[in-house]
Amino acid sequence: MRIEILNTGTELLLGNTVNTHAAWFGRELFKLGLRIARQTTVPDGDAIRDAIAESIGRADALIVTGGLGPTSDDLTRETTAEVLGLEMITDEAALRSIEAFFALRGRPMVEANLKQALTPVGSDVLPNPHGTAPGVYVPPRLNGRSNCAVFLLPGPPRELYPMFHADVVPRLRALAGVKTVSQALELKFTGIGESDFHQGIDAALARVPDLEFGYCAHIGEVDLRLIGQPHALEQGRAIALEHFKEFLISDDGASMEATVVRLLTERRLTLAVAESCTGGLISNRITDVAGASAVFTHGLVTYANAAKIKMLGVSADDIEIHGAVSETVACQMAAGALRVSGADIAVAVTGIAGPDGGSPEKPVGTAWIGLATEAAGATAFRVYHPRNRLDFKLAVSQAALEAVRRWIHSASQ
Amino acid sequence: MRIEILNTGTELLLGNTVNTHAAWFGRELFKLGLRIARQTTVPDGDAIRDAIAESIGRADALIVTGGLGPTSDDLTRETTAEVLGLEMITDEAALRSIEAFFALRGRPMVEANLKQALTPVGSDVLPNPHGTAPGVYVPPRLNGRSNCAVFLLPGPPRELYPMFHADVVPRLRALAGVKTVSQALELKFTGIGESDFHQGIDAALARVPDLEFGYCAHIGEVDLRLIGQPHALEQGRAIALEHFKEFLISDDGASMEATVVRLLTERRLTLAVAESCTGGLISNRITDVAGASAVFTHGLVTYANAAKIKMLGVSADDIEIHGAVSETVACQMAAGALRVSGADIAVAVTGIAGPDGGSPEKPVGTAWIGLATEAAGATAFRVYHPRNRLDFKLAVSQAALEAVRRWIHSASQ
Repeated sequence: MRIEILNTGTELLLGNTVNTHAAWFGRELFKLGLRIARQTTVPDGDAIRDAIAESIGRADALIVTGGLGPTSDDLTRETTAEVLGLEMITDEAALRSIEAFFALRGRPMVEANLKQALTPVGSDVLPNPHGTAPGVYVPPRLNGRSNCAVFLLPGPPRELYPMFHADVVPRLRALAGVKTVSQALELKFTGIGESDFHQGIDAALARVPDLEFGYCAHIGEVDLRLIGQPHALEQGRAIALEHFKEFLISDDGASMEATVVRLLTERRLTLAVAESCTGGLISNRITDVAGASAVFTHGLVTYANAAKIKMLGVSADDIEIHGAVSETVACQMAAGALRVSGADIAVAVTGIAGPDGGSPEKPVGTAWIGLATEAAGATAFRVYHPRNRLDFKLAVSQAALEAVRRWIHSASQ
Repeated sequence: MRIEILNTGTELLLGNTVNTHAAWFGRELFKLGLRIARQTTVPDGDAIRDAIAESIGRADALIVTGGLGPTSDDLTRETTAEVLGLEMITDEAALRSIEAFFALRGRPMVEANLKQALTPVGSDVLPNPHGTAPGVYVPPRLNGRSNCAVFLLPGPPRELYPMFHADVVPRLRALAGVKTVSQALELKFTGIGESDFHQGIDAALARVPDLEFGYCAHIGEVDLRLIGQPHALEQGRAIALEHFKEFLISDDGASMEATVVRLLTERRLTLAVAESCTGGLISNRITDVAGASAVFTHGLVTYANAAKIKMLGVSADDIEIHGAVSETVACQMAAGALRVSGADIAVAVTGIAGPDGGSPEKPVGTAWIGLATEAAGATAFRVYHPRNRLDFKLAVSQAALEAVRRWIHSASQ
């Protein structure tokens, strides 16, 4: 089935708003085994008419977003009816639903909202519990002009997404004869690159019947997305883990920080963090996870050397001798954070984010990551991420969280 | 001049990648006084042929992105030549540029890269200093089939953006007869909403000749974007400042954190931060700014009450009596951070991010922000942002940074 997406809205073409609809529809349709054949964006106005007329001549289903509001430049409903040669009538159920929306919020309904209840004759009104604009479904062959099913949906995601799942998916399944809806599984890895996956498992994954897969590379992370029926997903998962288990962050789509918080919670362990070059990013990522307060006790952002000395007990002499970015200082920072906090594990980072501060021996992008526990004492390892400042912070924070994850993992085996 | 954008790439329609090109082109073309008439996305393959053929029949200029790489599914160059009825030849300059790209990186150039030097006869090769894929410009009337100028550009932003500015803008200006290029000015505000601007200054801004303006609302921030010639920008700026100067973060597009770091640097002041509910976000934002190390000394993420007591000297009794989220504790946290760090200013936050931990008196979304200096002692104020966890952290961090910005501003007057 050939599906086209038409996004309407001048703001999408002036650069005020990034159009995320195409990617979202792509993911959702993929789960149904369907693909977008073409996506088009046009400004409000006459351009919508041409775009709809062209699409219904090519596509089996056209999904239009935007232009269902009450104002004078919201003309998607009227334009669609005109192109399809259908009369507009007031849909009583839609009218009552709009009235109810305003009544619930104690706001007066204005005249302009009346037109939102107008709909092409013979079409289905799709309820909008999250806004005033009902959606519209025009079945194929309702008119003499096309065999294309047309969906008119609101633009705002909080209105669009629920309507799509409730009222568009069932109709698309029926139209396309989709019997089974695929599921998605995301496995996150760190410490290896996308090319390692291509060389290592692409061929094996391609041999799994009815399994679709793809990669998404981020800084310090590669996500493998599997789509298919449960048995195909399980085969794909097994192939990935057979080769790359030691690099796995999570096999349920959980982020690195969510995984670390979950592991700490399960093992009843607490964590302290001492950060120099990452400047609070590690603490910030951990506290993005609900429930972090039970396992994360102390974060110390010791950006200045004086802070490392005073708050973490790092030796001023060692900073002088080895430099603030050194194995010695990373170990002392981790040991200090452990002592100050009384936590079970402490992780520390010190590095050169740049743009200034590099040297031939320690170029911008160098960082040391220290890890300390009561039983094992403090150790540190070096990483090198010659990137811009923000990407460097992200890469180093990822390496530090991965060090914690591995420690918990190995300690509990 | 009618301009169309054609983005090619299966990944854009499968949902792996959000297409940010349309918004970016929209902003850049707007500065030239030009607008996008239509944007289309198609997957790699035959769909590109149809889309190009349709566009060149409608548009005066077509900008195509993607599909210039060395692999077998990169067919934009060949497809364009075919649609336009032009032969392909190897461009010697392009070939040398690709060879130089590999030589510089000490990597071998493979056979597949040779085809990247192929270009339609009579077209201009657009150099790509940041990648192997040169761009292509096919002037209008080069062939009998269209009057449309066609630009073929690489997909990755780091290659696309410089090429657009260096080689596309001058040609578009000549084609469209653009005499003056508009400039953009961004003013960032906090503490007021977009509707305040609509009511307060929209009418006045609309009366400034040749001034375009628009808003972009973020959490804790509204950005006013002005586009026009310098004298129009100055009039727009004056109108905005006349009404909302006290809410201004910056009038040069600088972020809140960059503004705070700049002000601290100019006044030779140092800052310490004590964070509970924001969990390191304030420190992280400050250290995103290059040069932060000169003014930001200590960050303390005291997520646990024990950490507030031990590291900041907050009174355990006061936590018991008033709660950790209280004016008293916010003041003590700020005073403690000032004492521990020896900084000139300390800011502290304590609040309830949720989803748990709220109560009728202190619902989720409540936070206290404390500010301390040697001269003025510690004060605190309450904010309420009933949002999801991440948006709450962002809103509270913004309020805390704004408190610092205002303090510096008022102290220096």
